[in-house]
Amino acid sequence: MNLSRQPPSAALVLQTLLTQGPLTRAELGRRAGLSSGAVTKVSAPLLDDGWITELGPSGDRQPGRPATLVGVRPERARFIGIKITSDELIGMLVDLTAAPLTTHRTPLRSRDVGTVVRAVARLVRTLSGPAGKGKGESGPAVHSIGVTVSGDVDGLSGTVRYSPFLDWHGVRLAALVEEATGIPAVIDNDVRALTVAEQWFGAGVGLSSFALVTVGAGVGCGMSVEGRVISGAYGVSGELGHLPVGSGDRVCTCGNTGCVEAVASTQAIVDQVQEQTGDADLSLADAVRLARAGDATARAVFTRAGRALGLGIASVANLIGPERIIISGEGVAAYDLFADEIRRAFADRAFGAAARCELVVRPLPFETWARGGAAMAAHRLFAPLPGRSAGATGH
Amino acid sequence: MNLSRQPPSAALVLQTLLTQGPLTRAELGRRAGLSSGAVTKVSAPLLDDGWITELGPSGDRQPGRPATLVGVRPERARFIGIKITSDELIGMLVDLTAAPLTTHRTPLRSRDVGTVVRAVARLVRTLSGPAGKGKGESGPAVHSIGVTVSGDVDGLSGTVRYSPFLDWHGVRLAALVEEATGIPAVIDNDVRALTVAEQWFGAGVGLSSFALVTVGAGVGCGMSVEGRVISGAYGVSGELGHLPVGSGDRVCTCGNTGCVEAVASTQAIVDQVQEQTGDADLSLADAVRLARAGDATARAVFTRAGRALGLGIASVANLIGPERIIISGEGVAAYDLFADEIRRAFADRAFGAAARCELVVRPLPFETWARGGAAMAAHRLFAPLPGRSAGATGH
Ligand SMILES: [Zn+2]
Ligand SMILES: [Zn+2]
Repeated sequence: MNLSRQPPSAALVLQTLLTQGPLTRAELGRRAGLSSGAVTKVSAPLLDDGWITELGPSGDRQPGRPATLVGVRPERARFIGIKITSDELIGMLVDLTAAPLTTHRTPLRSRDVGTVVRAVARLVRTLSGPAGKGKGESGPAVHSIGVTVSGDVDGLSGTVRYSPFLDWHGVRLAALVEEATGIPAVIDNDVRALTVAEQWFGAGVGLSSFALVTVGAGVGCGMSVEGRVISGAYGVSGELGHLPVGSGDRVCTCGNTGCVEAVASTQAIVDQVQEQTGDADLSLADAVRLARAGDATARAVFTRAGRALGLGIASVANLIGPERIIISGEGVAAYDLFADEIRRAFADRAFGAAARCELVVRPLPFETWARGGAAMAAHRLFAPLPGRSAGATGH
Repeated sequence: MNLSRQPPSAALVLQTLLTQGPLTRAELGRRAGLSSGAVTKVSAPLLDDGWITELGPSGDRQPGRPATLVGVRPERARFIGIKITSDELIGMLVDLTAAPLTTHRTPLRSRDVGTVVRAVARLVRTLSGPAGKGKGESGPAVHSIGVTVSGDVDGLSGTVRYSPFLDWHGVRLAALVEEATGIPAVIDNDVRALTVAEQWFGAGVGLSSFALVTVGAGVGCGMSVEGRVISGAYGVSGELGHLPVGSGDRVCTCGNTGCVEAVASTQAIVDQVQEQTGDADLSLADAVRLARAGDATARAVFTRAGRALGLGIASVANLIGPERIIISGEGVAAYDLFADEIRRAFADRAFGAAARCELVVRPLPFETWARGGAAMAAHRLFAPLPGRSAGATGH
């Protein structure tokens, strides 16, 4: 069955069950806004083709015939997500519900496109081969692969337009991965993919709008507005890291001063503590230890970073007005050192009712970045790219 | 006929003709993504009920039967838009295409809710009565009224939650206007309504995303993302005026320092030039004259305002990535004094491809604010508010 050729209500039923199921048919109809007749009609091919299944009677005490719960069959489809960083690949095999089945990390010896694509193909074989399936386990073929990269990525054409960390310009990565693996592939910016994963399966489920701020080697932001993760008309959006709300004259990787990233990225924090202490070998872990031990210099660096992040987060709240802002990324491991200042700056600057936006800190293990790619691939079941192959492949 | 009870494709056909018509049926089908059969089917009730009409053969030379152009009938429906400022009402009667038929301004003696609502009802009578129709002209009854107010307005419940200029808190304005006029009314934030007007009939037509920045007594911003004008989960969005990217320590109306509005609103500009020149009677017109005559002090004030606006605009581009940013409001009358610095700050700070976002200056006469309210009311033909009356009234 080709999901993208089913009526939109079929996708809606499957989506609702994926994010909110299992549900009785009546509740499913209510949440999807469909009549019970429509639910029965569009469910039939989904049942026949094994995307959803009846799970037995619900626990609800209702007069008459007990209602049957309907849910998705997680084993119906598998997806692989891969995040490419500057020095390694992180891969994850997931089921239809984006639940992790296997993860694997592999170092990258070079950022050369050919080398990276070959390493991606090897990682796909590792994840999808017998070794990836666990003892005696079998399952469906991998439906599609979602690869994510930081930088300016055009998901529609499958092109990495510019990735500073990889020093790639105009790389047609989706087509290269498809050629090397024989499996449909989609690509996107890593923060955007993680936002899709949060929207579908994480802290963004059911929200009309939310933002995900990631603090780490860079400071990124994904935004879901009225149910859609935005991309920007020219492929750039969520560049919270380069909002001019940081203080001081530190020069950012973009060449400007005053960027959030220039004071709040992990490298910026290490650099500042090194400069202040004169210890050129000091690591991020050292900086965190110093600050936690009460060292005023190190604490001031984290405070300054927290203030810049809080002002950036308040800017997102004032412009977009999201229901919730999720703060994540490797940086939240040291969140205790930022937290007060983030909340103070946010409270100072959020305008009127925008201050009601909930700030949620959510430590996501690094593998979650790979899950973002897989969730994005799964998402394409419902929103196939025009003219590209992933959605058009019937599995 | 009740448009909101027609199939969505009927609304789509009418919308497409409103914003892009007149069109041949074939072209209409292409743009609306409907088969020719579907176009014929959904057009029939719209033709019967006078929303659209056949306009005769198109100019295209085509083999065979000449194609007929179809267009909307502007006279089919009338709407009134009213903007409430702190000292006057600005009203406009428009047709189905939001083309102005009559405008009228009336001073407000008090900001008391009852006084304002009575003045609104009188203005509605003036605009919709014989005097409002011109000599011998007749037309349909007013379909609905759109009232706009600056501040935190909840369009869904029809409540002005907080309007600083009017000093209103929790005013159920939509219901009060309906009671006083007997005509369905919708309300919204003024900048958001103007953004709807630009999306439908102005410089936003056909764009996937755009922002409208208004510079005047306040600095506002409306944003259309993937075809929807966003409201913010808590009713606040587009608060560009309170982004912390302004320089210096001037205190903003919101109590913070460093806001765009604290250096770039018309009042902030007057205040700064007064302070610098020591002339407490100096007006905005005087400040503009001084700056145009080359006075360095006055020019510096405009330059500083331009820089704050440019940084705010770059922040919108970096976060949302719109296709175009329209700069408007009374402030653009002095745009020559801001322009260079706005463009310089934008070019400095727009990140990567976000710099491709087009900046368009669009002087909109003050009456356009009233047209925004009318366009918003017309827009509700297609997107009626759940549980409120405007969309449910069959005219
Ligand atoms: Zn930067
Ligand atoms: Zn302010």
